[in-house]
Amino acid sequence: MTKNVLVLPGDGIGPEIVAQAVRVLDAVNEQFSLNIQHESALVGGSAYDETGSPLPETTLAKAKAADAILLGAVGGPKWDKLDMSVRPEKGLLGLRSNLELFSNLRPAILYPQLADASSLKPEIVAGLDILIVRELTGGIYFGQPRGIRILENGEREGFNTYVYNESEIRRIGRSAFEAARQRGKRVCSIDKSNVLEVTVLWKDVMEEVAKEYPDVELTHMLVDNAAMQLVRAPKQFDVMVTGNMFGDILSDAAAMLTGSIGMLPSASLNAEGRGMYEPCHGSAPDIAGKGIANPLATILSVAMMLRYSLDAKEAADAIEAAVSQVLDLGLRTADIASKGCETVSTQAMGDAVLAAL
Amino acid sequence: MTKNVLVLPGDGIGPEIVAQAVRVLDAVNEQFSLNIQHESALVGGSAYDETGSPLPETTLAKAKAADAILLGAVGGPKWDKLDMSVRPEKGLLGLRSNLELFSNLRPAILYPQLADASSLKPEIVAGLDILIVRELTGGIYFGQPRGIRILENGEREGFNTYVYNESEIRRIGRSAFEAARQRGKRVCSIDKSNVLEVTVLWKDVMEEVAKEYPDVELTHMLVDNAAMQLVRAPKQFDVMVTGNMFGDILSDAAAMLTGSIGMLPSASLNAEGRGMYEPCHGSAPDIAGKGIANPLATILSVAMMLRYSLDAKEAADAIEAAVSQVLDLGLRTADIASKGCETVSTQAMGDAVLAAL
Ligand SMILES: CC(C)[C@H](C(=O)O)[C@@H](O)C(=O)O
Ligand SMILES: CC(C)[C@H](C(=O)O)[C@@H](O)C(=O)O
Repeated sequence: MTKNVLVLPGDGIGPEIVAQAVRVLDAVNEQFSLNIQHESALVGGSAYDETGSPLPETTLAKAKAADAILLGAVGGPKWDKLDMSVRPEKGLLGLRSNLELFSNLRPAILYPQLADASSLKPEIVAGLDILIVRELTGGIYFGQPRGIRILENGEREGFNTYVYNESEIRRIGRSAFEAARQRGKRVCSIDKSNVLEVTVLWKDVMEEVAKEYPDVELTHMLVDNAAMQLVRAPKQFDVMVTGNMFGDILSDAAAMLTGSIGMLPSASLNAEGRGMYEPCHGSAPDIAGKGIANPLATILSVAMMLRYSLDAKEAADAIEAAVSQVLDLGLRTADIASKGCETVSTQAMGDAVLAAL
Repeated sequence: MTKNVLVLPGDGIGPEIVAQAVRVLDAVNEQFSLNIQHESALVGGSAYDETGSPLPETTLAKAKAADAILLGAVGGPKWDKLDMSVRPEKGLLGLRSNLELFSNLRPAILYPQLADASSLKPEIVAGLDILIVRELTGGIYFGQPRGIRILENGEREGFNTYVYNESEIRRIGRSAFEAARQRGKRVCSIDKSNVLEVTVLWKDVMEEVAKEYPDVELTHMLVDNAAMQLVRAPKQFDVMVTGNMFGDILSDAAAMLTGSIGMLPSASLNAEGRGMYEPCHGSAPDIAGKGIANPLATILSVAMMLRYSLDAKEAADAIEAAVSQVLDLGLRTADIASKGCETVSTQAMGDAVLAAL
């Protein structure tokens, strides 16, 4: 049976890094006879430029029909002044919500070969391997009412709504506990239950979910403390689960602990395990078009996609092994450049992974 | 003219650390003939235990009448199961909002003597000196509507409202720009303007405020990126200004970069410069009553209080110099213990500061 992958290069460095990832996908497709087909579509700022919408209907239709989606990145200063409703980010948010990709898995792993790249002391981050499970289709990102209104005194007031119901919390909780079962069997749920009612409910429901997983330990931590603990002693965590907004902040902080956010893939899954895969980093407009961006997070996103959505574990393993081998050979893109290693281009890094495969 | 200071020891280690800070206040009061009087009152969990309210009316009345307030810390597991409306934190939040202490100044400074305590590499944090200006009486902490309701299908739903009007943003903006004028003349405003309308308004108003301060540079950063940049290269910042929730998270992360959150004071000011002063750290219930907590953040909060609210700059300088001298002598409480230094008790640390004065 043919599997269909939709490729969405997006903006900034997106097209460059996705090009290398697609070469890798093609290579394992042949090597492992996976019967994968792929086509491309527009999303984000480039889609807006072409069609007036950051998520054209044809793209959404193709995304709904696909078995998996590979995304580069969206956004850039060029589109910063646009109305919120057509900004590149709306393309990404629209995909997440229309496909109900509620479960965002963001691993923060320190590659031993890149230990130097971290701004933290080696003993604090050596062997770091945490997984942040972020709720992706609810919370303050999508809550209504929202907007900017004019008050009676003529002043403007901006407002957003942070809202979660029980089912939304329960399903992301289950994602986190399922993931923890495959790992260290510990879930730390992050809230601000000493101030925000919505997170009091969050904490309650997590307790309920925990009863379904007696083999997994549940603890709770306040978000401000979590931000501190990630800096102080990140290895204390196994799986962290949290809402959309806190997850956005904490997963980026966690990724940066490794010093090599250019290495980190992510998965956004729906209830059937179909998903969208993308690097944790953004569209890096400052280096777009220069051919120096790191394609490895996107290549590793292909591995995640093969493992979670395309039932091709061996191919996923092969890609991850190839990436590790390339690092062992001392090849580095500029973002992870290091003394004694060779700094290579986006394309050359792609070549090297293909050669290692 | 007599100046009145209200002392609020609070919960956990609060009473222990405040006791040392009050000794220091008494000493400079005499030494510099400051004519300061002080009295104590209950707040937080200990107030709840005694009176049924985390912010008794007598405490609030005294707080309103005082020239400045010195607070220890509030909260602890003992009160975690209480209804939100009477939790210890409500005492703190009630003081902030009733006294309109909208401007929270949280310096994150690395003491050269404590450079080792940081989990970050020395070159990343050496000389770190940033100031986080956090809006403290608005945003999602106080927004209405809020609560937990039952939906038609019987499920619970939790909700909070993230709201700011122009005047609220403008006054905290001015606080930040004023502070920047006394420092590096750079303000970085933190928002999530690619997703949240309330922070689109935030960003707009910051731009307007910037026009009043042509000598200060304004930049903007998304909150997820800010969390990363604090980990990657914190010295790029001078003053960061942000809302209540983002400020809670980022200021704790920033404080932890120094590795010695037990050293960091904070000020919460109203429009007239009257204020409440407290350590950045919490009530640390796990070590309460053991006599090992670090009193220096509270002692340095006294210095901040003298400088900002009591017009006693010399006394403030003297306290800061005394603290620095004690560190030079190699005295450390357990939280900042280090090889080759003497680990001392809360009381002994207080003694040492008094001796140095
Ligand atoms: C681009 C932006 C809308 C997005 C988010 O905030 O979710 C990004 O920061 C992310 O984390 O994927
Ligand atoms: C205790 C709590 C309510 C408080 C807050 O969230 O503001 C604390 O974390 C702080 O930062 O002062």
